[in-house]
Amino acid sequence: MSVVVTRVERVDTVVVEQYSGLGVATLHEAQGRCGLLASYMRPIYRPAHIAGTAVTCEVAPGDNWMLHVAVEQCQPGDVLVVAPTSPCEDGYFGDLLAESLKARGVRGLIIDAGVRDIATLTEMNFPVWSKAVFCQGTVKETLGNVNVPLVCAGALVNPGDLIVADDDGVVVVPRVKAAAVLEKANQREALESEKRATLASGVLGLDLYKMRERLAEKGLKYVETLADA
Amino acid sequence: MSVVVTRVERVDTVVVEQYSGLGVATLHEAQGRCGLLASYMRPIYRPAHIAGTAVTCEVAPGDNWMLHVAVEQCQPGDVLVVAPTSPCEDGYFGDLLAESLKARGVRGLIIDAGVRDIATLTEMNFPVWSKAVFCQGTVKETLGNVNVPLVCAGALVNPGDLIVADDDGVVVVPRVKAAAVLEKANQREALESEKRATLASGVLGLDLYKMRERLAEKGLKYVETLADA
Amino acid sequence: MSVVVTRVERVDTVVVEQYSGLGVATLHEAQGRCGLLASYMRPIYRPAHIAGTAVTCEVAPGDNWMLHVAVEQCQPGDVLVVAPTSPCEDGYFGDLLAESLKARGVRGLIIDAGVRDIATLTEMNFPVWSKAVFCQGTVKETLGNVNVPLVCAGALVNPGDLIVADDDGVVVVPRVKAAAVLEKANQREALESEKRATLASGVLGLDLYKMRERLAEKGLKYVETLADA
Amino acid sequence: MSVVVTRVERVDTVVVEQYSGLGVATLHEAQGRCGLLASYMRPIYRPAHIAGTAVTCEVAPGDNWMLHVAVEQCQPGDVLVVAPTSPCEDGYFGDLLAESLKARGVRGLIIDAGVRDIATLTEMNFPVWSKAVFCQGTVKETLGNVNVPLVCAGALVNPGDLIVADDDGVVVVPRVKAAAVLEKANQREALESEKRATLASGVLGLDLYKMRERLAEKGLKYVETLADA
Amino acid sequence: MSVVVTRVERVDTVVVEQYSGLGVATLHEAQGRCGLLASYMRPIYRPAHIAGTAVTCEVAPGDNWMLHVAVEQCQPGDVLVVAPTSPCEDGYFGDLLAESLKARGVRGLIIDAGVRDIATLTEMNFPVWSKAVFCQGTVKETLGNVNVPLVCAGALVNPGDLIVADDDGVVVVPRVKAAAVLEKANQREALESEKRATLASGVLGLDLYKMRERLAEKGLKYVETLADA
Amino acid sequence: MSVVVTRVERVDTVVVEQYSGLGVATLHEAQGRCGLLASYMRPIYRPAHIAGTAVTCEVAPGDNWMLHVAVEQCQPGDVLVVAPTSPCEDGYFGDLLAESLKARGVRGLIIDAGVRDIATLTEMNFPVWSKAVFCQGTVKETLGNVNVPLVCAGALVNPGDLIVADDDGVVVVPRVKAAAVLEKANQREALESEKRATLASGVLGLDLYKMRERLAEKGLKYVETLADA
Repeated sequence: MSVVVTRVERVDTVVVEQYSGLGVATLHEAQGRCGLLASYMRPIYRPAHIAGTAVTCEVAPGDNWMLHVAVEQCQPGDVLVVAPTSPCEDGYFGDLLAESLKARGVRGLIIDAGVRDIATLTEMNFPVWSKAVFCQGTVKETLGNVNVPLVCAGALVNPGDLIVADDDGVVVVPRVKAAAVLEKANQREALESEKRATLASGVLGLDLYKMRERLAEKGLKYVETLADA
Repeated sequence: MSVVVTRVERVDTVVVEQYSGLGVATLHEAQGRCGLLASYMRPIYRPAHIAGTAVTCEVAPGDNWMLHVAVEQCQPGDVLVVAPTSPCEDGYFGDLLAESLKARGVRGLIIDAGVRDIATLTEMNFPVWSKAVFCQGTVKETLGNVNVPLVCAGALVNPGDLIVADDDGVVVVPRVKAAAVLEKANQREALESEKRATLASGVLGLDLYKMRERLAEKGLKYVETLADA
Repeated sequence: MSVVVTRVERVDTVVVEQYSGLGVATLHEAQGRCGLLASYMRPIYRPAHIAGTAVTCEVAPGDNWMLHVAVEQCQPGDVLVVAPTSPCEDGYFGDLLAESLKARGVRGLIIDAGVRDIATLTEMNFPVWSKAVFCQGTVKETLGNVNVPLVCAGALVNPGDLIVADDDGVVVVPRVKAAAVLEKANQREALESEKRATLASGVLGLDLYKMRERLAEKGLKYVETLADA
Repeated sequence: MSVVVTRVERVDTVVVEQYSGLGVATLHEAQGRCGLLASYMRPIYRPAHIAGTAVTCEVAPGDNWMLHVAVEQCQPGDVLVVAPTSPCEDGYFGDLLAESLKARGVRGLIIDAGVRDIATLTEMNFPVWSKAVFCQGTVKETLGNVNVPLVCAGALVNPGDLIVADDDGVVVVPRVKAAAVLEKANQREALESEKRATLASGVLGLDLYKMRERLAEKGLKYVETLADA
Repeated sequence: MSVVVTRVERVDTVVVEQYSGLGVATLHEAQGRCGLLASYMRPIYRPAHIAGTAVTCEVAPGDNWMLHVAVEQCQPGDVLVVAPTSPCEDGYFGDLLAESLKARGVRGLIIDAGVRDIATLTEMNFPVWSKAVFCQGTVKETLGNVNVPLVCAGALVNPGDLIVADDDGVVVVPRVKAAAVLEKANQREALESEKRATLASGVLGLDLYKMRERLAEKGLKYVETLADA
Repeated sequence: MSVVVTRVERVDTVVVEQYSGLGVATLHEAQGRCGLLASYMRPIYRPAHIAGTAVTCEVAPGDNWMLHVAVEQCQPGDVLVVAPTSPCEDGYFGDLLAESLKARGVRGLIIDAGVRDIATLTEMNFPVWSKAVFCQGTVKETLGNVNVPLVCAGALVNPGDLIVADDDGVVVVPRVKAAAVLEKANQREALESEKRATLASGVLGLDLYKMRERLAEKGLKYVETLADA
């Protein structure tokens, strides 16, 4: 059976907006090193940064019919997350669908498949993270699902989860953790900018993080030449 | 036997020039969803767009001798299309060959292999779509063929066919279809800009394309929550 | 056993500086077509060009502890070269380590793995050539080696070797050959700019390189149509 | 935080045993075409077939410590399902761990990473489906999780779910659906063996499935030669 | 438009049968080193060898409807050659379709996509060369073409061409060349078995093929140690 | 310059023979977890196991000329190790070269490229570990090197080094370490068979390796359900 779930509990808008300055690397760390999509998910242009709530869309290979269904479920501040039921690089998405999403206030597209019209999407300033850029057209014959949990590029995404994407890639933060992760991420950011200044001044990480003793315990040897090892 | 075919019937110049505003996605659709080269064929810089007539060149792996032979067969408005006889990412092409092609009025290179000197090629504004960027040098020992039909990145290319390449990838339009495809592509473009405006105004694709009834017939269900499904 | 070799004989600074105008393609040719790293090693931004002396760092998969150890061994003019002991795309390196390396005058990073914070690295103008862009965090539990010979992206790199990287990729020049290769590369550059001018004027490579006779000897046939072959 | 969940509700043993004659293709269809692991998951020997309940184990790249923790959580009839937190092909598993699992009555291993000692595992008749065969050793430094939900080779696996693997690959059936899917799979098997006999007798699928009319409606044309099209 | 071409000129049966003892490597050489399908096309069991005439079938990604149409066009001695219009690894083919093909005397399947039920296909002794083994089910919604020229795994195949497949892979011999290639292949076989005996007796290829002089001319140097080079 | 080094110091024959019972996994561990070739190097048939001394051969892409030169440098007990100067999957090696190597007492071939005639090689019982099986023919035009150090599938191999290959893959043991590694490997084997018996009796690795305390220190928590975590 194919379903469209119409009532999605989303991360609170106030929380989402506070994510606007936070990067994927920071968030991935702040939530305990999980939630990353695979490294092949790349932005069509750089720099790019979005944070928004997931509307999920599961599609058949080579069939983009459900994207049209998904558009209607999108609200301002959403990010559309698309995964095919088997690996496919076809061009499911182009400038027309982008206009539709933009008209609804959608912030971007995450698609574990192909995208096309990227010159126009770049001009429109509509960001996409995809597995491929490929013009291969799709059909409209087979149903899928909208707003069901799905695996996108190796990561589990539930509708309403927070999606953040930047030049480094894409991360999903589960809805129920979004507030807690935000706090940890902000703490992390504060700490990092401090550390960054210290390291820029020439202090070594070995000293800043007090690593020397533990390295020695593990058996690290300093030698003048390899023959001395 | 290795041959150079010297008399190639090309798509008419007047027709070629009318392709200059048309994108790969549009053309692929206009000719019935065929003719695309594989998604790994990417431009060395963006944005880029060319339309021209194919001079084909089949080369041995790691051997770029035939490129020099192919240059002489090129005319203003041509695009050089190169395919190795087995997969190879070596750097067959660099700034010297680009100067030669530019001097002959060639519009760009499509190569199912590697290219090098891409900083210089970018400065020269000579566009290349390739499988890889790689400096590995090639030899000049083994013959190949010029202006024979070949398979490049999964697509059949005949000499004289029309090649269009842009940020989305590369498409080949068979010579005998070039005029007919042009007409369809222009119709499509006209339709699409209309549709784009409609969608930008907020009209849903579901309504514009009248999809709701057929979706229901196929069995699509709208539910408030997944538990209702 | 894990070691840090502290005394590394490096290519002479005067020699290194003379490499600053030379590209990877030229150097690869000048040293007899060897020393290239695999084509998947791509720069995080373009254009980019560095030349410097290798500090090598062998790391465990998913563990960037030794990078902190390696930083201390770096001197102004060095390039840090990192290889995992088995294939891994994790994000070993980000903005904090970049600050540390920059503070020590390091010119860039070559890593057969992943990198993150690339928007910041781009702003900092700190160039990286990597296999992947990926945020996946790493641990600090397992020792590795610093300044031992290692294989990075298919190429053998010894500490103190010369590393040159540009938009085309990365090449390693063995320390003992650095002076000789420099001379050959300069000769090659001189020759090439001459050739480039000749080719730009429309002289064919077939004539410039006197290839016609040898092509005929090998059996190349010119025919008007394929049916004549 | 790293956890070991000790109380796992498993598919009922009686149900599991009835899966012993059912193939992955049938089950994937019977549950609505979902639950397949990626096609790169291949058995180390053929033929092989197992059905059992999942114990899940999430590991760090290059670190197999948690496998030892997971062994203790295994019961007779279980299948161990292992996924690294980032892509890794290291040899996490060999003959010693296989002896341990065999001693506990475990039916096989599904691992989205590498395996080694496959000659011995074959002799032991201990089946493994893996992404790679690779000897690269692992460390025991970093914690992971046992019996938490995880994504293995693109599929969501919950502890206690049913895992079936054969020469075709691996499928996961959610615990709560196991009884229902069994029934549908048996119906399907019955139907298929009937159909198979009919097709073997020479009846065409076009007629058996009554496809001719719908094909014609969609516009399929039969022509003697392509020129007639 | 989608078409089924019903009248296909095939390689003569008498010629086809004489190919039954000839391997892919020999035929590829005998026809001038062309016609090989990509190296990822592997047999589902070994040893296997078939020679037959091509019925071609172009399918949409994830849609195997046209396979049922193609079956009817098959005659005894044919080989079914299937290519999707964009890359897809779904399991288009299983035991039911194999029964149908077997009932019509088809010798095997070549598919640039996935196959399933390989344990049963192996028992049935029905050979398949495919890109993947994958259970992912397909739909029956979109038309394709039967007996049109297509590119399968990088090689152009025309209906009626000769297909030979063995443990080494798959080669296509164009229909009009089939008789000529057969003669060359037989000559080659005769020569090779002679050479094989000579080499087995210890005569070196360097002497048998008289390579020493040409190697010296090209500049090959024999040295006792690398230091002497 | 291209060279053939004729005087190669090999691992002592007596030492080599003692490696005949040792597997790749054991040796990789015994020498400190290094020396493995990439996981894509797979045997053409299984089971297979060889141990021998390396004759190295560096070849141009698509050119197997130097293999004929290398044959002459082989002695009984050698293993031929071949690496192309850039990635290539062509079929460099088939039954004729295998006869030559067999006549000289060579134990097998390790090639970071393609091989063909694998049905015949299997009948001949001549083992090959390769990156691909592919019939694509090669030329004899370009020189390479024999018995120089080279990187094969990511590992540095020096002529005379010990090569061991089995169903798990391929490992290189540097000549000067061969005796020491043998001793460690034998110790390891003895220990492992003891451990294997203990684990087979049902003793847990957690207890045998005394891991419980350290796991607890690192923070591993046992909980009944995930909600308790």
